[in-house]
Amino acid sequence: MSNQDFIELKEERESLLTKFESFKARNLALDMTRGKPCPKQLDLSFPMLNLVSENNYKASNGTDCRNYGGLDGIPEVKKLFSEYIEVSEDEIVIGGNSSLNLMHDTIVNAYVYGVSENETPWGKIPKIKFLCPSPGYDRHFAICETLGIEMIIIDMDENGPDMDQVEKLVLSDDSIKGIWCVPKYSNPTGITYTNEVVERLSKMQTKASDFRIFWDNAYNYHHLTDERPELLNILTTCRETGNPDRPFIFGSTSKITFAGAGLSMIGSSKKNINYIKSKIAFQTIGPDKLNQLRHFKFFENIDGLDKHMIKHGEILKPKFDMITKILDKELGGSGLASWSNPKGGYFISLDTLEGCATRVIALANEAGVKLTPAGSTYPLKKDPKDCNIRIAPSLPETDELELAMEVLTVCIKLASIEVL
Amino acid sequence: MSNQDFIELKEERESLLTKFESFKARNLALDMTRGKPCPKQLDLSFPMLNLVSENNYKASNGTDCRNYGGLDGIPEVKKLFSEYIEVSEDEIVIGGNSSLNLMHDTIVNAYVYGVSENETPWGKIPKIKFLCPSPGYDRHFAICETLGIEMIIIDMDENGPDMDQVEKLVLSDDSIKGIWCVPKYSNPTGITYTNEVVERLSKMQTKASDFRIFWDNAYNYHHLTDERPELLNILTTCRETGNPDRPFIFGSTSKITFAGAGLSMIGSSKKNINYIKSKIAFQTIGPDKLNQLRHFKFFENIDGLDKHMIKHGEILKPKFDMITKILDKELGGSGLASWSNPKGGYFISLDTLEGCATRVIALANEAGVKLTPAGSTYPLKKDPKDCNIRIAPSLPETDELELAMEVLTVCIKLASIEVL
Repeated sequence: MSNQDFIELKEERESLLTKFESFKARNLALDMTRGKPCPKQLDLSFPMLNLVSENNYKASNGTDCRNYGGLDGIPEVKKLFSEYIEVSEDEIVIGGNSSLNLMHDTIVNAYVYGVSENETPWGKIPKIKFLCPSPGYDRHFAICETLGIEMIIIDMDENGPDMDQVEKLVLSDDSIKGIWCVPKYSNPTGITYTNEVVERLSKMQTKASDFRIFWDNAYNYHHLTDERPELLNILTTCRETGNPDRPFIFGSTSKITFAGAGLSMIGSSKKNINYIKSKIAFQTIGPDKLNQLRHFKFFENIDGLDKHMIKHGEILKPKFDMITKILDKELGGSGLASWSNPKGGYFISLDTLEGCATRVIALANEAGVKLTPAGSTYPLKKDPKDCNIRIAPSLPETDELELAMEVLTVCIKLASIEVL
Repeated sequence: MSNQDFIELKEERESLLTKFESFKARNLALDMTRGKPCPKQLDLSFPMLNLVSENNYKASNGTDCRNYGGLDGIPEVKKLFSEYIEVSEDEIVIGGNSSLNLMHDTIVNAYVYGVSENETPWGKIPKIKFLCPSPGYDRHFAICETLGIEMIIIDMDENGPDMDQVEKLVLSDDSIKGIWCVPKYSNPTGITYTNEVVERLSKMQTKASDFRIFWDNAYNYHHLTDERPELLNILTTCRETGNPDRPFIFGSTSKITFAGAGLSMIGSSKKNINYIKSKIAFQTIGPDKLNQLRHFKFFENIDGLDKHMIKHGEILKPKFDMITKILDKELGGSGLASWSNPKGGYFISLDTLEGCATRVIALANEAGVKLTPAGSTYPLKKDPKDCNIRIAPSLPETDELELAMEVLTVCIKLASIEVL
């Protein structure tokens, strides 16, 4: 920021404070904390609720979906979602309504049993570390935190995680057992990993023989534009580079059908999937097959799912556009903040000046706008530069969003004046 | 068996063998292995499928059941099922479709984190043991086996587990951390724990401060007669005897609504429930609330559930009656076998002469009747007396059952002749 700009900004302070006080006086209660679908998005899946009935409860292979039986999913659902996460039908297990649950259980199983028959359970090793490209997804980091796994921040750029950092670390430290990745429309930065990043992740040498990539492909079909970035297939790439068992791929329909009543899935090598199934056999009577059948009958095939996702995009796009429009208008060229302009996913990632995010969020909260707590996108909720703010446009109505963004931009300016 | 009886039985051998060969010639394929509800039972819950729709997706507190949010269940479902498992509404968490999953996760959490903030994780202790009243439920024992937990067989009688054995063991060995119980219409013996047994379990001194009772109340409303045995409330009794945090109570609607698409629940002290919730927060986005709503709208209250269970009983009772009728007719007074005559639950437990069960099941299999493998009701699938056979009457049609029982009684006689 030039000296001239700074002088102008300081002169604006009084009017900003007046605006801020007027927001406060309105007793707003706006919530931009969560990447929750809005009711209109959920309405898109209403027809799914009627598709399982007295006359429709059997899978294609005759399985009575009401009864016990089946650990990995009914055939047509395995087929559909193996296309969705891009694995083959014997490389997938369909889970319950939460892919977070599958991720958690995969790590806990590694902790208790090891990632395969021949590997030491992580719980028997004094120190386990995970690489955490950041900003990233708070719930990934929370799983590590609760299990006492040490997290190492990896910088994110427009290509994905900084692979120089990653390669150097995994080569030298065998306590590093995993890396968290949201490879497409990443949470929160919105970028999609480049081919080079995926290839380097696949082929890099790791000191730990049981190193795993936790590939949370949560937004694979969650496009906001027609310009769909290609993501290299991690399972294929790992196989080709001699590390077939390295990736665990996760997906879910939480942001496709019903956020709380969807399906989850895990994909991996046949060897890993067989091992996972051997563990699932002890831990559940199997996933809800009626809900699987509902999903299949609703989509019928991957094209049906894709068409459905276009409708989601049509609801979400105007919200994203409005946010970037206000950011451009209020902060464009100011040097006070930079933000992502994602082509898909659920978030806009905004960086304030260093040391400002906590203050901005506190000010916004004072004015009735709730934002995800500062630091949430970093391990242990500590953003070393205190600058990242995750904006979740999906849930609020457009007019609420507009107001919330006006509050936010005023708060960013006020906090910036304080630190400049 | 008197000498005279034995001579008569031996004389019968030829005709038994003829019968056996004639069964074999029919290429039967009868399956009595699993405690699965039959289609007619599942049909009872068809109306449930239509109760959540475009106009019905909100909980009583306004929660949109389609979206994210809520870890322990919607209020009306917590209320209904807290009555079902007899705890208060702040002593319950509603889970997914599998109570086995809740049991598994409860033990795995104890293994990874300890049963409470102040207790050592079981995974950090060199040896963990569980008491296993047997015959019992194979999947309980399988969880222990897969986690490397040593299992100690406790004899079962008509009152429940042999409490002299239990009390002596838990008093002297602090590596004993738990006991598996199916306290009502026990799997497979059908008995209900007496008040004395429940009281002794509640008040007994345990050397381990983190000893827990895994109270799998799977058949609480699964009556076959009007003569409903009372089961003492374990949570209340434990509280009164100064061990409020001792029991974990499990229940599910797998054998109430849809076996594969029901609800599960865990009840315990408020302290335990809060601890469980603190862990669940990391491992899932929360259970399927639409399925909760379906269940609530179907039953409305505990009386609705009870009435529904009477219909189940009406379907099951004739099957149980037919089995005991054939057993009485073919084996009554022979001394070759004894069997339970349960007032509820899902199984008939049959004891052959010592050393016969494996042979009986092999013979039956040869004649096209699949029975649960010998030993399944004991830890590590090893029945020390090789005599227990678990009969699951629910799934087959009555005529199939009748035929299967004729085969079984012939096989029991043949195997008995071999050992006598």
